Amino acid sequence: MTAPSRSVPVVRIAAGARHTDHDQVAAEEPMEVRVNGSPFAVIMRTPGRDRELAAGFLLAEDVVRSSDELLTIEECEDTTEEGRGNTLNVQIGGDAIERLSTRLGERRQVTMTASCGLCGRRTIETLRSRVATVDGRWTIAAEIIGTLPLRLRESQAVFDSTGGLHAAGLFDRDGTLRHIAEDVGRHNAVDKIIGRRLMEDALPLSDSLLLVSGRTSFELVQKALLAGIPLIAAVSAPSSLAIALAQSSGITLCGFVRGDRFNVYAHEERIT
Amino acid sequence: MTAPSRSVPVVRIAAGARHTDHDQVAAEEPMEVRVNGSPFAVIMRTPGRDRELAAGFLLAEDVVRSSDELLTIEECEDTTEEGRGNTLNVQIGGDAIERLSTRLGERRQVTMTASCGLCGRRTIETLRSRVATVDGRWTIAAEIIGTLPLRLRESQAVFDSTGGLHAAGLFDRDGTLRHIAEDVGRHNAVDKIIGRRLMEDALPLSDSLLLVSGRTSFELVQKALLAGIPLIAAVSAPSSLAIALAQSSGITLCGFVRGDRFNVYAHEERIT
Repeated sequence: MTAPSRSVPVVRIAAGARHTDHDQVAAEEPMEVRVNGSPFAVIMRTPGRDRELAAGFLLAEDVVRSSDELLTIEECEDTTEEGRGNTLNVQIGGDAIERLSTRLGERRQVTMTASCGLCGRRTIETLRSRVATVDGRWTIAAEIIGTLPLRLRESQAVFDSTGGLHAAGLFDRDGTLRHIAEDVGRHNAVDKIIGRRLMEDALPLSDSLLLVSGRTSFELVQKALLAGIPLIAAVSAPSSLAIALAQSSGITLCGFVRGDRFNVYAHEERIT
Repeated sequence: MTAPSRSVPVVRIAAGARHTDHDQVAAEEPMEVRVNGSPFAVIMRTPGRDRELAAGFLLAEDVVRSSDELLTIEECEDTTEEGRGNTLNVQIGGDAIERLSTRLGERRQVTMTASCGLCGRRTIETLRSRVATVDGRWTIAAEIIGTLPLRLRESQAVFDSTGGLHAAGLFDRDGTLRHIAEDVGRHNAVDKIIGRRLMEDALPLSDSLLLVSGRTSFELVQKALLAGIPLIAAVSAPSSLAIALAQSSGITLCGFVRGDRFNVYAHEERIT
């Protein structure tokens, strides 16, 4: 049960007529993340690249800060029927162990829904990231930004079949697509990408761009900030708080990227 | 600072040329919800209809089940500068007080992001709703379903200016739009609508339809279920778990509602 989409029966109604058919829909399932054997969080996600998701999530939660603190990520056997294939244990070491205690003190094990990535914070203050600003003083041609959505879409296999998945892509500065992830949750797609690079010990991503298929919220900018990504481009609109965080943290934030047109909401100096 | 949208400076890039302009973006701000004086949750939301949002959120969290348990909802004065205008205290009574203790035992005060509505659950089991099925054995003409998106869009003032807000609409069975709410978070828009009807002591909403502007996830179906809404229509795709919950709870779930075409993923018997 780990396919990213499912075939379901559907009744199609058009101009008064109805017929029975099948449709592909995006899979959404809860995944339980345990850390050193103890329940930490439940994430509503599209199955696939679960290890990357767990790694990226623990980075965003500031439990893990580097790949050497990530020892193993393994599927758990001791689960309920429902949890089988949907439960991972992440073994962590080094300073991450103390950070885990702090996080568990600040929050209980939480469930993240398909579109939620900052759950579990108790106060507005704890929303702030430990990383204040990104590096990466480079520039990029506007023409490259404009091509990113098409490059992402060309690689977005599942979306085309379901219409129900968000996609995120990590690009090099020359516009080469390095990684893509799809999920019912925007934040999960971003966690999968960043988690993969964390596992490859490739953080900070100071020479990368992040493209997201939808809107940009505060949490997405915060995830990019923690991974050190200096530029975020989105096909749709940013929120006010996403813009404010991009401005204060030195991240270039582009929105409504469509062909050769887009808007820059923060740090336009990187765009030439 | 409670307008649903903000004017921000923007650099518009088109065909190589750039010019400085202003753009309207959706406001996203944290709102702290206190219950009987104690911090309960922080919700990332678009300001506006905050009381309805708090009420709907506490219904979805199964702290409050009826309007008589909601005593007062008032803005707090004793906040940080940042929290001013963004902090509400909900005074609850009756059995809700014991449910609050249970919830606080199950979870800590959490932060909900702009697209998150089920945060804070510890186990997959607690994701299940206390309500098993909806009432409402009525039928509705397919033609009415097809008209809902246009009716919602006509009333969706902020979306038109920002492109960044989700909308939800509550309709009567004859297709009359009763309430609309907009928010950067889908689940917030639904909470605002259901919270309003809760405050009006109008639950369960057995004679209402819910339309959402985006995709349908598990959490949205669960919110409809708790409010007793027998039919959900969405402009975009449902997830696999949204369909499963709609099927098991007796909710008619329509997707891709566009003009006179749409798909029915669960309980088509209500559509004539």
